[in-house]
Amino acid sequence: MVIVGAGFGGLYAAQALKRADVRITVIDRRNHHLFQPLLYQVATATLSPSDIAYPIRSVLRSQPNIRVFLAEVSAISVATSTVILEDGELTYDYLILATGACHSYFGHAEWEVFAPGLKSIEDALEIRRRILCAFEKAERETDEAKRRVLLTFVIVGGGPTGVELAGAIAEIACMVMVQDFRVINPREARVILAEAGSQILPSFPADLSAKAEASLTKLCVDVRKNAPVTAIQPGVVVVGDERIPAATVLWAAGVTASPLARSLVAPLDRAGRVLVEPDLSIPGHPDVFVIGDLAAFVYQKGGPLPGLAPVAIQQGRHAAQNILRRCQGLPSTPFRYADRGALATIGRAAAVADFGAVKISGFIAWIAWTFIHIFFLIGFRNRLIVLFEWAWAYVTLQRSARLIIGGSERQSR
Amino acid sequence: MVIVGAGFGGLYAAQALKRADVRITVIDRRNHHLFQPLLYQVATATLSPSDIAYPIRSVLRSQPNIRVFLAEVSAISVATSTVILEDGELTYDYLILATGACHSYFGHAEWEVFAPGLKSIEDALEIRRRILCAFEKAERETDEAKRRVLLTFVIVGGGPTGVELAGAIAEIACMVMVQDFRVINPREARVILAEAGSQILPSFPADLSAKAEASLTKLCVDVRKNAPVTAIQPGVVVVGDERIPAATVLWAAGVTASPLARSLVAPLDRAGRVLVEPDLSIPGHPDVFVIGDLAAFVYQKGGPLPGLAPVAIQQGRHAAQNILRRCQGLPSTPFRYADRGALATIGRAAAVADFGAVKISGFIAWIAWTFIHIFFLIGFRNRLIVLFEWAWAYVTLQRSARLIIGGSERQSR
Repeated sequence: MVIVGAGFGGLYAAQALKRADVRITVIDRRNHHLFQPLLYQVATATLSPSDIAYPIRSVLRSQPNIRVFLAEVSAISVATSTVILEDGELTYDYLILATGACHSYFGHAEWEVFAPGLKSIEDALEIRRRILCAFEKAERETDEAKRRVLLTFVIVGGGPTGVELAGAIAEIACMVMVQDFRVINPREARVILAEAGSQILPSFPADLSAKAEASLTKLCVDVRKNAPVTAIQPGVVVVGDERIPAATVLWAAGVTASPLARSLVAPLDRAGRVLVEPDLSIPGHPDVFVIGDLAAFVYQKGGPLPGLAPVAIQQGRHAAQNILRRCQGLPSTPFRYADRGALATIGRAAAVADFGAVKISGFIAWIAWTFIHIFFLIGFRNRLIVLFEWAWAYVTLQRSARLIIGGSERQSR
Repeated sequence: MVIVGAGFGGLYAAQALKRADVRITVIDRRNHHLFQPLLYQVATATLSPSDIAYPIRSVLRSQPNIRVFLAEVSAISVATSTVILEDGELTYDYLILATGACHSYFGHAEWEVFAPGLKSIEDALEIRRRILCAFEKAERETDEAKRRVLLTFVIVGGGPTGVELAGAIAEIACMVMVQDFRVINPREARVILAEAGSQILPSFPADLSAKAEASLTKLCVDVRKNAPVTAIQPGVVVVGDERIPAATVLWAAGVTASPLARSLVAPLDRAGRVLVEPDLSIPGHPDVFVIGDLAAFVYQKGGPLPGLAPVAIQQGRHAAQNILRRCQGLPSTPFRYADRGALATIGRAAAVADFGAVKISGFIAWIAWTFIHIFFLIGFRNRLIVLFEWAWAYVTLQRSARLIIGGSERQSR
């Protein structure tokens, strides 16, 4: 069998087949599994890429029934049960497709160059480069108005990623950069969070959303609700009717499913996700399972299920179980998501957590957020290092990954 | 006054002026000081960039007499005492020029694309990408001969960088990768170190060089002496008369001074370095000091002095002292290098150290190497993390930074 994609869904599916008598090929176009929930901390200079990424081979090394291929999948042919690679092909008896999602600019693909999104390590390093370069350029800028533009950061989209980015940038400006600059006062940085809907963190209850907003406001983030972005141009973002000159615009507003979904010849929803059957297979092809951000699972209250790591993990394990059942001649079983809650953090010692019956915010929620994230990180070394980096950042107010690499610096060599 | 370049020379010069009543502008095209002696460990996946790089602003934050500019210097006009930036200019009363060296391909600039050198973080990440990708491609290659080519690594140049790279790659192949691959046997990797001269580590005494060679041979590195590289083509390197098919070729053979040297209108040596006066200033311009890898200091036995961190550090401090003396109306003093020895490491628990009267090798030299390097790292956090990463790698045989980022993976998205 073949698993395409070694994110949360694919990796947990592979691990659920540890003792199974199947030969598994795991294919990913990256050599590493990425812990995406902490990617914004790479973008905001707290963590290094290697703290939240782990070689797929190493994670799966103890499973002799698995081989790992670094390869780009260009299409799936369900008619011939073939995974078509850029440089070859592979047939499968069972397939788990878990290639996730990428940014969506809602038909404005031209915005991407002005407002990068956050999905890969390269994205995170590019965003980090833009944020740090903005401060550096401001330090050398003599024109007051231009300096103001350089120190304006607009984050589009008030979901968890947008909230976490806005909080982290405001914190860097007010706490970290302050001691290091002579000309500018980094506290003058403006961080604007523009959310098209009527509340930030739309998937959270209104009271937690309000608490998150209050925490952001305390960090001097300018939270704009009912503020759809209508245009992004070089150095300017148009929010509603207002033109906001801003050197740094970051995109956290929307995702669309990986284009591989289209090659399945299965029904898709508006976001390009595959409308899966209750057992996570696709209509007419019980040997093909689609999980995680690539799947739209609508058979449950609040469906389709959100693009969260716990959904992908549970679906990965469930798809693996269904394949084992099918191998044994048993019928597959429907998936049910066990919702254990959701968390979002807003900078230093502030977070919100919705565990259904229990809703918490502030310092306790932040501690919960910290330990839950450490727990799900892969590898003892990464857990130790991330915990150390957080403690270091908390106590010293420093950020250890404030490096500008790549980008225009490189081109100018 | 102006300091251009915040490597070892520039940074220690700036710090030596801590209590001086001068206004200093430090200019670098990077936002970080890089601890180059450990750069090969980023290239070979042991360390992360942020472990050996530190924001220049943060290093110098406690010196109110300093401002830091992120800028590219395009020329120096000694006639008008002006530093010409790509986007502006600055005048100086005193100048310290410390922009170091870059790779030299001895007139074969076309080799660079096939055989990258190791000077910047981007270089290190590119080399890491090539090494890791070679193993990944070999795992998927079905043709025996092609697999052999993919698993052949040639390092050109047997100086400290070449020796360290060769040792680290051999170690990764034999100890780290072995458990993770199913198809290939990473132990079959061939690592060839090609040195044009008659001994590796030419600057070391012959007996230590022989010991280093024995350590490399024990790691299965194929050490070739009197083996000048005469051509590098895609997938092939010609050593002497022999054509060696190799997917990965790395360049550690030569450096040339930063091109800024040429704009000084001062005498240069064959490697493009500025022939400085005994006090480190340039002929006819006692207000301009050139230090570190950019300077050729010939007034001492064994001169010109080698391009080592201790030389740059001592010259940085001396140039700063001479500027202070000149400010007080005193004559400048000649520089004398206090040679405290040299070290090179050859993988796990092996190194050679030449402290003049005392020459050591093996485990004790490796411990000396470890603590000297930790000591000179900047920042307590970096020291702690690097020590932890080394201990972790030593005990677990793992490498924590085995990430392929950027490069062709990115282009194919």
